[in-house]
Amino acid sequence: MLVILLRTTLILSAQNPVPVYLDPSKSVGERVENALSLMTTEEKVALCHAQSKFSSKGVARLGIPEIWMSDGPHGVRAEIEWDSWGYANFTNDSCLAFPALTCLASTFNPELAARYGKAIGEEARYRKKEVILGPGVNIYRSPLNGRNFEYMGEDPYLASKMVVPYVQGVQKSGVAACVKHFALNNQENWRGHIDVELSDRALYEIYLPAFKAAVMEGKAWSIMGSYNKFRGEHCCHNDLLLNKILKTDWEFDGAVITDWGGAHDDHQAAMNGLDIEMGTGTDGLTTSVKNAYDYYHLANPLLKAVKNGDVPMEVLNDKARRVLRLIFRTSMNPNRPWGSFVTPEHSKVASDVAKEGIVLLKNDQNVLPVNPKLYKKILVVGENATRKMTIGGGSSELKTQYEISPLQGIKNAFGSQCEVNYAMGYASGPSAYGREIPSKLNADTLLNEAVRMANDADLILYVGGLNKNHFQDCEGGDRKTYELPFGQNKLIGELIRTNKKVVVVIVSGNAVSMPWVNQVPAIVQAWYLGSESGNAIASVLSGETNPSGKLPFTFGVKLNDYGAHSFDKLCFPGDSIKEVYKEDILVGYRWFDTKNIVPQFPFGYGLSYTTFQIGKASVDKTKYAKNDVVKLSVTLTNSGKLDGAEVIQAYIQDKVSSVPRPTKELKGFSKVDLKAGESKVVTLELPVSEWGFYDETSKQFKVEHGQFVINLGTSSRDIKQQIPVTVE
Amino acid sequence: MLVILLRTTLILSAQNPVPVYLDPSKSVGERVENALSLMTTEEKVALCHAQSKFSSKGVARLGIPEIWMSDGPHGVRAEIEWDSWGYANFTNDSCLAFPALTCLASTFNPELAARYGKAIGEEARYRKKEVILGPGVNIYRSPLNGRNFEYMGEDPYLASKMVVPYVQGVQKSGVAACVKHFALNNQENWRGHIDVELSDRALYEIYLPAFKAAVMEGKAWSIMGSYNKFRGEHCCHNDLLLNKILKTDWEFDGAVITDWGGAHDDHQAAMNGLDIEMGTGTDGLTTSVKNAYDYYHLANPLLKAVKNGDVPMEVLNDKARRVLRLIFRTSMNPNRPWGSFVTPEHSKVASDVAKEGIVLLKNDQNVLPVNPKLYKKILVVGENATRKMTIGGGSSELKTQYEISPLQGIKNAFGSQCEVNYAMGYASGPSAYGREIPSKLNADTLLNEAVRMANDADLILYVGGLNKNHFQDCEGGDRKTYELPFGQNKLIGELIRTNKKVVVVIVSGNAVSMPWVNQVPAIVQAWYLGSESGNAIASVLSGETNPSGKLPFTFGVKLNDYGAHSFDKLCFPGDSIKEVYKEDILVGYRWFDTKNIVPQFPFGYGLSYTTFQIGKASVDKTKYAKNDVVKLSVTLTNSGKLDGAEVIQAYIQDKVSSVPRPTKELKGFSKVDLKAGESKVVTLELPVSEWGFYDETSKQFKVEHGQFVINLGTSSRDIKQQIPVTVE
Repeated sequence: MLVILLRTTLILSAQNPVPVYLDPSKSVGERVENALSLMTTEEKVALCHAQSKFSSKGVARLGIPEIWMSDGPHGVRAEIEWDSWGYANFTNDSCLAFPALTCLASTFNPELAARYGKAIGEEARYRKKEVILGPGVNIYRSPLNGRNFEYMGEDPYLASKMVVPYVQGVQKSGVAACVKHFALNNQENWRGHIDVELSDRALYEIYLPAFKAAVMEGKAWSIMGSYNKFRGEHCCHNDLLLNKILKTDWEFDGAVITDWGGAHDDHQAAMNGLDIEMGTGTDGLTTSVKNAYDYYHLANPLLKAVKNGDVPMEVLNDKARRVLRLIFRTSMNPNRPWGSFVTPEHSKVASDVAKEGIVLLKNDQNVLPVNPKLYKKILVVGENATRKMTIGGGSSELKTQYEISPLQGIKNAFGSQCEVNYAMGYASGPSAYGREIPSKLNADTLLNEAVRMANDADLILYVGGLNKNHFQDCEGGDRKTYELPFGQNKLIGELIRTNKKVVVVIVSGNAVSMPWVNQVPAIVQAWYLGSESGNAIASVLSGETNPSGKLPFTFGVKLNDYGAHSFDKLCFPGDSIKEVYKEDILVGYRWFDTKNIVPQFPFGYGLSYTTFQIGKASVDKTKYAKNDVVKLSVTLTNSGKLDGAEVIQAYIQDKVSSVPRPTKELKGFSKVDLKAGESKVVTLELPVSEWGFYDETSKQFKVEHGQFVINLGTSSRDIKQQIPVTVE
Repeated sequence: MLVILLRTTLILSAQNPVPVYLDPSKSVGERVENALSLMTTEEKVALCHAQSKFSSKGVARLGIPEIWMSDGPHGVRAEIEWDSWGYANFTNDSCLAFPALTCLASTFNPELAARYGKAIGEEARYRKKEVILGPGVNIYRSPLNGRNFEYMGEDPYLASKMVVPYVQGVQKSGVAACVKHFALNNQENWRGHIDVELSDRALYEIYLPAFKAAVMEGKAWSIMGSYNKFRGEHCCHNDLLLNKILKTDWEFDGAVITDWGGAHDDHQAAMNGLDIEMGTGTDGLTTSVKNAYDYYHLANPLLKAVKNGDVPMEVLNDKARRVLRLIFRTSMNPNRPWGSFVTPEHSKVASDVAKEGIVLLKNDQNVLPVNPKLYKKILVVGENATRKMTIGGGSSELKTQYEISPLQGIKNAFGSQCEVNYAMGYASGPSAYGREIPSKLNADTLLNEAVRMANDADLILYVGGLNKNHFQDCEGGDRKTYELPFGQNKLIGELIRTNKKVVVVIVSGNAVSMPWVNQVPAIVQAWYLGSESGNAIASVLSGETNPSGKLPFTFGVKLNDYGAHSFDKLCFPGDSIKEVYKEDILVGYRWFDTKNIVPQFPFGYGLSYTTFQIGKASVDKTKYAKNDVVKLSVTLTNSGKLDGAEVIQAYIQDKVSSVPRPTKELKGFSKVDLKAGESKVVTLELPVSEWGFYDETSKQFKVEHGQFVINLGTSSRDIKQQIPVTVE
């Protein structure tokens, strides 16, 4: 290789000296400065806005490539037409669908996040994308948010630990991750204009940490602004979020990209830290003028403002530098690999994430795993057993090369030993994509047929939940209620009344109320699992996989158990103009724990088919300085008869604080694989510096002296030990 | 660079051993074999046919990229829809149009061919194409061929010398040239099925040499089969042409690609040397089946034939190897540059080719260059003064970023000193692209207006010729007559009758009859010149450029002066089934010279604004062995007052031969730039091995002993000296 490259270099330099910006041996910084010095003002402006629905210009004259982007975060979206939202009807873009990010978060396994990121980066690279629009790390504030399924749960520490390897994995392929939606886009309702009001503490302690980790540890090359407003400015051109926090405090050197249509103001778009404007509606101009993209805020208006001095050239140069840096890191890095698409390895990643992310919520009398010898007839009930969940849901929609339905997976697992029948049970109505319901069937017909077949079965596997329709788990709208939709609670009730064993599998990206929770022996939370969906669900049901997923957000009993729903409408969903996060820092389990509200299933919770014992934990010292790292050691034993994995979780509590603090805050976890009977000593390293609160006076995180308790457990509520330590 | 690459390599190998096929330090051969060994039969077959109008599959699973192709050869065509011939309406694909290849050939300047190839390769690379479909080197047999403008003239030696640097230039960017149309596609009429019959001598001496040079010297990575038949088999799957001549005799290791829709037979497509099938019509299947591409000859039928043993696996492996080789040479070569698009450098190439290619055919009393001081009113007449010649013409049509019309160029050159007016003079009718004629104007109105305005002018610049409409210079049909169309001869006659000076500029890719040749003082042959068209024409008319182009084909006085038109219809255009090349080896000037027919303007002819003197030539020896290279030296002097360039041309004649041979055959040329008054000694190197004929008995080229004459001149008819040499 060296010889060949030397020869190439020599040949090149003999014929034509390579300009610095084309010379990969030069640093990205040098290349950027050289390219910038050769560009006209018009060319710099052209870098800062879309040329089509999903691409932006390079500098053709200088041979600097265009940037092509694709929606993520669960797979590479099908090709879209140049200047419409229509699909381009290519046939080479049927991708692999990975599980939704809620499922990834449920694995509590950062190594899987790294594999997930690497795989999706390879898919994006093969599809010639420079940027994949993901991952999403908006915090789960309300179970009604239609887009929670794309995010990583309610806890900033968990989301931080999972997002970093994902970003690093993607970027291994020379594809930029685009961390989204920065920030506070925690609901879909009025997302385009709602002005979020919250304390600095809530901002810094709850809503920003995952973004900060993605930027400062993950070294994300791009970030996407959110649609909503924060303190009066849209987040896509928000001086505080972008110029101050992101680019100054966090030293982000990548490009800020709008959400599609997220820019609204010429001056703010120019001055407040936005770099690339995408998807702006042009008020019908698209059809009436030659190039509607010239009307973007960061197109002609920016050019004019720079030329007349309203916007300093240095502001434009900074944008151009960031876009060039993105290009040099991606398409102009000759060492980037070529990617690959729908490989067995990628399927394995999708399968592993799905299987590790499924959460076993309840399992009385070991009804799971299903022993096929016990049953002659298994009845699968529920629309989600056959529904393609990669279709719908908004921009994360995927055209897949394959998607195994739960029914297919269950048939594959048990069909050779049992009779497996299916009843739809309910119908959700046509989706945005025109799915049709058999015209003669109404809700009662479907329900009655399911009950009739249930009476003839030995085991009922109910596969329901939400779906990707509007007002379900779908971008652009929020759920209307916390209940299961489409009459499912009635249906489940009727199935229970048959006195057959009913195992409930919930396919959703959000928590739902479970009024029948005490009447069914087993509940599985299965998420949107992508191409390997049915295989993974069947693997858990059959016991081939011993479940090890943990909830990344709290399942409350009822909606107003959640902090966001414990105040007035101004707290959620706002008054259409403004929204006030009145629960403040008490999001998710922080609220439930501090307010002593018993959840249906707590954060961090998930059962296994085996049992684990936790030994007595020890810490390396009893008194720690603020820069110390607590080394906590504990022996974990698989005391059951099956191999399995447990997640040991450490929540700190500040016993005496000058400000109110949550009862518990996750500050460490480790997923441990244990063979049956095996014991391992697990060491958690807990930096004391991460135990502070955001001090609104000094405007920095502060760790106060005094007593802390480390709550060690297997969920936020299953605390096995409390280890006191002193910070000096 | 070395340090960085070493680090990357080490990191890669530490984490994951790179498979051979992904390792750029391995040879292409090793990478191909490794990739092949990992592929399924289905994956190999998938490499061998289209997946869309202009792309074919890679191996997504292994991360081997797709191949994207674009029409050439004069620029990178606009994006086409996935599965229709409609344009995709992108806005990033407005390219630079280079002059048509006839113009490039007219430059007689291989260095310009190298610059042209490099520039268009860079444009294709920027547009992410792996293959550009060009150059075309079909021999100019009849002036009626609608596609002559895309080719390089009537002489195999000239075409060979020009095609090699073009191919090499393109491939510098890691983009494959696709030399076309192999072979004998010398007319458009019945091109899909006409079966060409000709002698082996004509085949090898006239029609194959440029292809051979492109392959053996240019090292072309791909070649395109032609639509027509040869000796009973379609040329896209023609055992003799592809397996025997191309792949065995010439050792071509690249991929044979069909012309779009050029494959017709499962077995022949599999067995006769075709590698990639593109554009096959699928008899309406496209709309009625899921993937019509599966019905391609090299898709399911090939897969079936390999599986049941009708086609040996080694045949499929050979195809797959060739396609993989193409991929490793293009997209999987990490050292390939990034390309560039519509750069000033590319415009300069287009301009230089256009200015050097324009041929000054006549210039009585030095009416050219136009001295603007002599004229108050210049009248430009003719539709071609304003017509976009990049539109129409078939697959070579381009969407340009700009195209300077002749009228605009003339106005720019003379508008500040003279009044420049314009009369359309004639109208060609709507083109396939719906160009409209002002409804009130008919032919007489246009003619009368032009004559009226001519009577009021001092100088008439007539800009006419052919255009890119059907039955003109356009793919898919041939010209109906040799005359200028649209009543132009009548119009020119009327203009001459005004007794004003009439300078005729012919914009065409073909010769035309010129009944008015003796009645106009100056004639300029201007070709299709692309984006820089008007600038180049004006540059020659104004004298900024001293013309130096030479005709790459003979302009006969009338159609049946040409060999192809001197016999019956079977000779041209055939009887719809078969066509017999009865003129045999006597194509172009070989015919005119041997048959003593005086052409209007001979091959190699072109005037200058200055004058040249040729000194006495000398050769290094008088007797040569068959392996010798004759070194001919001659002093060339610019005896005029303007800088200029002359092309010294050497035609050999075999005085005594065992077979009939043409009177003259071009075997050397050199274009020489000379300042006014300057002299240079020019040395032509003429390998004696190239002086033979194709011996149909021994099936190889043969140089016979005896007397040869080197005819040295400035056109095929302006022979200044005859130098006898003996071959022993």
